[in-house]
Amino acid sequence: MSLSISSTMRALEIRALDGNLENLALVEKPVPRPDKGEVLVRIAASPINPSDLMFLRGMYVKKKLPVVPGFEASGTVVASGGGLMARALIGKRVACAAPYNGDGTWAEYMVTSAKFCIPLRKNISLEQGASLIVNPLTAWALLDIAKAGRHRAVAQTAAASALGKMIIRLGQRFDIPLINIVRRQEQVELLQSLGAKYVLNSSAANFDDDLKKLCQDLHVSLAFDAVAGEMAGRVLSAMPKQGRIIIYGGLSEQPCRFDPRGFIFEDKHVDGFWLSTWLQSKNTLGRMRMAMQAQKFLAGDLKTEVRARLPLEEAISGLQQYASGMTEGKILFMPNRN
Amino acid sequence: MSLSISSTMRALEIRALDGNLENLALVEKPVPRPDKGEVLVRIAASPINPSDLMFLRGMYVKKKLPVVPGFEASGTVVASGGGLMARALIGKRVACAAPYNGDGTWAEYMVTSAKFCIPLRKNISLEQGASLIVNPLTAWALLDIAKAGRHRAVAQTAAASALGKMIIRLGQRFDIPLINIVRRQEQVELLQSLGAKYVLNSSAANFDDDLKKLCQDLHVSLAFDAVAGEMAGRVLSAMPKQGRIIIYGGLSEQPCRFDPRGFIFEDKHVDGFWLSTWLQSKNTLGRMRMAMQAQKFLAGDLKTEVRARLPLEEAISGLQQYASGMTEGKILFMPNRN
Repeated sequence: MSLSISSTMRALEIRALDGNLENLALVEKPVPRPDKGEVLVRIAASPINPSDLMFLRGMYVKKKLPVVPGFEASGTVVASGGGLMARALIGKRVACAAPYNGDGTWAEYMVTSAKFCIPLRKNISLEQGASLIVNPLTAWALLDIAKAGRHRAVAQTAAASALGKMIIRLGQRFDIPLINIVRRQEQVELLQSLGAKYVLNSSAANFDDDLKKLCQDLHVSLAFDAVAGEMAGRVLSAMPKQGRIIIYGGLSEQPCRFDPRGFIFEDKHVDGFWLSTWLQSKNTLGRMRMAMQAQKFLAGDLKTEVRARLPLEEAISGLQQYASGMTEGKILFMPNRN
Repeated sequence: MSLSISSTMRALEIRALDGNLENLALVEKPVPRPDKGEVLVRIAASPINPSDLMFLRGMYVKKKLPVVPGFEASGTVVASGGGLMARALIGKRVACAAPYNGDGTWAEYMVTSAKFCIPLRKNISLEQGASLIVNPLTAWALLDIAKAGRHRAVAQTAAASALGKMIIRLGQRFDIPLINIVRRQEQVELLQSLGAKYVLNSSAANFDDDLKKLCQDLHVSLAFDAVAGEMAGRVLSAMPKQGRIIIYGGLSEQPCRFDPRGFIFEDKHVDGFWLSTWLQSKNTLGRMRMAMQAQKFLAGDLKTEVRARLPLEEAISGLQQYASGMTEGKILFMPNRN
């Protein structure tokens, strides 16, 4: 263990996952102690992500309540519970993910597995590092799947999201033609201004025909979908035979709807993606290498725009602000900033 | 070419795929001539399958109209258009499938690719051979997929269908635990009388809980589904993580509905199966070996029950009779029987 850690900390705690923000409270609780293989991280910054909003409404992973929300953060490792990897992290600036069970990142301190910590390169700020994992690593992993599967072209829904824009920039870097699907005309223009070549508005009358033609022309064989509901089925239907759609989000909050004939006669497929599962499929070295590579692009292709930096006290207004415009930049909690 | 083939034949012809049987007519048309690689089959018997009913309603593959329906039959090869395989079949009793485009099996004669013909073993009657392809080969292929994927246990919907019963018997033979899902209590009893160990009635109040418990207890990692709609999603939800469902039919005529969280957090998958695609993935020798193996079980595990044998003249009453009770045995058209 190391120096000057107070015995209690401030943390946000949620008591019921029903979407009612009155169940979120700022509390004083003991600073947790790491077990073997775990570290204690002093949290510098932690973003609000779409998955946090889903979690607070009971539509994401379940945790025993009450619990501290927040799935990713940056910070400094201030103590270890022992074990080679954990000890090696002491004093390091890291990006870190919350444990599967137990308290998350919206607190002054968090205990998590050393495996869930990624040392930050010197030139990465704690503010950028706070959003390293959820969006940049997901974008990196999805492009990795596209490259490994030798897909000639890819389609994506929710293309105007923070993650969608990262996929656009990585797609340009790796020269993978990308069809971007958004819901509003101003998003079409926004993505075109970022250099996106193919952008379709799903609210347009001829969207399905246009999407089908473009998917056939570009030989789209893979799609990334964060919407689920009918949209997932419309995209899969538009793809040529043997198309494959990867569901990584459920923003529509509706069941995926697929025409069975696509599976039967056209050899189409549905898979899913969750970063936790994907990272677990890699060994420690593979994970580290990937995380270090992705950091090279963190100031560029994988840059996260920050809209606001808030203390934990302003959690509720921060959550409301984020929910009202998720594509307009991240809101960061800065639990230890005075 | 060979002996005594008249220049015209009787055939059923459909003029619109809207499910209206008034569009089905018995016509006199020229006996078709085989091109290179094709054979002319004198049809002995051809069944009505669920896929025929779907086809007549415009919900299966599309063909240029008017067209002779019917996807499988047995008969004797009476002429070849040339080519090694086609010539070798002359005079042989075969099971045969209709070509992708063009006229099918509900006629006195059909031209099809030599690749779509399977020579019948001596002990297989033309009546049994008429139903060799669609159901027995599908059952064989699905069990082959289960074995190749080393699945510990399998679930299937529409288990009381002709195909479902074949899967039950092959599952017993290959020692693969099988959960059978049916819609009515009398089907539960019917399948239990065939020796099926696990049979669940999807109309029962506690079906989803029972299915989930059984899927977890038996470690079901694969499901075969012919229903689509909500049922496909209920089955996939009940399966343990990494479960995979193969859609091979759409009896509910509804889009498949899947909870996106199964794809994201539980690494679940949807694939499809169509016998044509599967057979094409095999080379000629592999296809032949498989078809000869499956014939060994045609009098036993893969036996098709025949309910009625009808001339083409009785097509409409035959179709109505079949549609009113698809699980009660096949109706065969016998175009050349006088």
